[in-house]
Amino acid sequence: MPRIFPVIMAGGAGTRFWPLSRLRRPKQLLDLVEPGTSMLDATVRRVLSICDPRDVLIVTSRDIAGEVRREVSKLPEGAILAEPVGRNTAPCVGWAAVHVARRDPEGVMVVLPADHTIGDEPAFHAVVELAVRACLDGSLGTIGVTPTRPETGFGYIEVGGEVSPGVHRAVRFVEKPDLQRARQYLDGGKHVWNSGMFVFTAAAILREIERLMPALHAGLREIDAAIGSGDEVAAVERVYDAITGESIDYGIMEKTDQIVVCPGRFGWNDVGSWAAAYEMRKREADASRNVTATDLVAVDAAGCLAWASPRKLVALVGVADLVVVDTEDALLVCPRSRAQDVKKVVDRLKELKRDELL
Amino acid sequence: MPRIFPVIMAGGAGTRFWPLSRLRRPKQLLDLVEPGTSMLDATVRRVLSICDPRDVLIVTSRDIAGEVRREVSKLPEGAILAEPVGRNTAPCVGWAAVHVARRDPEGVMVVLPADHTIGDEPAFHAVVELAVRACLDGSLGTIGVTPTRPETGFGYIEVGGEVSPGVHRAVRFVEKPDLQRARQYLDGGKHVWNSGMFVFTAAAILREIERLMPALHAGLREIDAAIGSGDEVAAVERVYDAITGESIDYGIMEKTDQIVVCPGRFGWNDVGSWAAAYEMRKREADASRNVTATDLVAVDAAGCLAWASPRKLVALVGVADLVVVDTEDALLVCPRSRAQDVKKVVDRLKELKRDELL
Repeated sequence: MPRIFPVIMAGGAGTRFWPLSRLRRPKQLLDLVEPGTSMLDATVRRVLSICDPRDVLIVTSRDIAGEVRREVSKLPEGAILAEPVGRNTAPCVGWAAVHVARRDPEGVMVVLPADHTIGDEPAFHAVVELAVRACLDGSLGTIGVTPTRPETGFGYIEVGGEVSPGVHRAVRFVEKPDLQRARQYLDGGKHVWNSGMFVFTAAAILREIERLMPALHAGLREIDAAIGSGDEVAAVERVYDAITGESIDYGIMEKTDQIVVCPGRFGWNDVGSWAAAYEMRKREADASRNVTATDLVAVDAAGCLAWASPRKLVALVGVADLVVVDTEDALLVCPRSRAQDVKKVVDRLKELKRDELL
Repeated sequence: MPRIFPVIMAGGAGTRFWPLSRLRRPKQLLDLVEPGTSMLDATVRRVLSICDPRDVLIVTSRDIAGEVRREVSKLPEGAILAEPVGRNTAPCVGWAAVHVARRDPEGVMVVLPADHTIGDEPAFHAVVELAVRACLDGSLGTIGVTPTRPETGFGYIEVGGEVSPGVHRAVRFVEKPDLQRARQYLDGGKHVWNSGMFVFTAAAILREIERLMPALHAGLREIDAAIGSGDEVAAVERVYDAITGESIDYGIMEKTDQIVVCPGRFGWNDVGSWAAAYEMRKREADASRNVTATDLVAVDAAGCLAWASPRKLVALVGVADLVVVDTEDALLVCPRSRAQDVKKVVDRLKELKRDELL
């Protein structure tokens, strides 16, 4: 196996888990799925079986770098790249590629969001291994998830002919579809979910950035030079200030034909809302299908997710299918079916300039 | 006018306003109806226009005597009679009668629960004045409330012939009726709600206690003697330990024919549940009929009552007609229509021996 450099993207500031998630405590730092283990921590743990701990990189935002550091305190100091400002995933991947290339240009980057969960780790590792081997020729690999429902919340990848066992040519990236099209994708068997996980060598992604995003590439060269002269922070600040934000999907993946896709089924979930968190933890539910990470008294209440401090009793009487999330300064009550609308509360708080609650 | 001694019964330990109400912070100490003013405080304020502040008596339980004292700090120390244990309303009224009789045997006791509200004070005072005059001949007066709905949660009084303008003979006390009977009472026009407010001279009620509850009367004589010798607390403890609990309704009112009733309409409400509290405060509701004593963001939420610390934001998304009550150690979510079932939570907590939450 070549040398693997996991690149964990941990910069997101999700709003859909408000009030538990906040600007400085985004989703990847919460233990939504596994009590006591943050999603970031779980992501790191997952890659440590396929790489040297010194080869893990975590790209996050400067705002939460301290929290991230505490969360992954076993990794070396240099593991964390703290972006001064969010510029979407392309600069994030590019900056990490610069670091990987300095250590090993042919090192393979396994780019992973920090806020997804994987139910079946052996299956996941098998797919990653396929993708790692497939990208050694300079291809850009993506990991696709075989759909299990007509999901309209994800992007899709159209899967083409097999180039080696388990590895396919990617025909095209498709934006989030409507329900009818999502049903066609599910039935047709030719589309997989775009998981946002990518696998490529540092040399290959830098080559494609140079070709398709020359301004970013110039910035990355400036950062690379600054690392040599010990002035990386200032260079990153300059470069991030100058470049425009772009996703790696749109900036590179959708514009190149060097893509292979490795489809798989490994209990993947992006845990996109409180409703998804409920589904993820359903096996812990009580007889009335209530899921709780708190002290709960349920009188005639069913299908609810209750989340509060362990020092607080939550009493639910005669309600069904609600999400109830209590924190020190904010409390949310919302039907599970409306969990996507939690971001409307955050929007409202922004309008009201209630920054202390964001 | 004769000398009036308001006797405010403030011993109750309601469970229907849990988690805001607790054993040591019962309903009468909450500001459910008027922000910043407890129901006890409002009750005291209401009687101060018809009596000397030195003539107000408050009977409460020893457990909450300290809280009650703080609440009515403007009244003299001797205003508070702290029962060592609850024995229902007959001993409570009897003990107060002993005190009133020592000051003025012909003094008129106006006995009022501390946890009701009165919307129309002038109308209330007019009815009280009628009752005060009517009881000077030794009758026992009650204040009835003209029904406005077929309520099954109250006792009723059947109203007989008028003995003087606005004052009627009471034919009988009736227990809480079923809905059919409550409808008949409402349509028949001969029944009023038993408000639990009574008016009589100290001499008259002591005379009826002597006749109908001789054991209690003996105890009251023992207390009276002890007051003379400065040992009231020990005597009350002995007497309360020995007697059985009994309501003034059942022990006296239902068994004597000396009763007159003064019916009235004065915006009376016993504020029996969170649903009633919502109704009482509906005029403060927002455009979506949400009532709140807190910082609220409502997204597509209507008809809810939200109650929390002023330091906490409550966000309601896509829910209707809920009661949401948050305190430091407990949180309740319940439909308004199920507000009576809040006591089931309290029952459950008792079973679980979660005394810290009671």
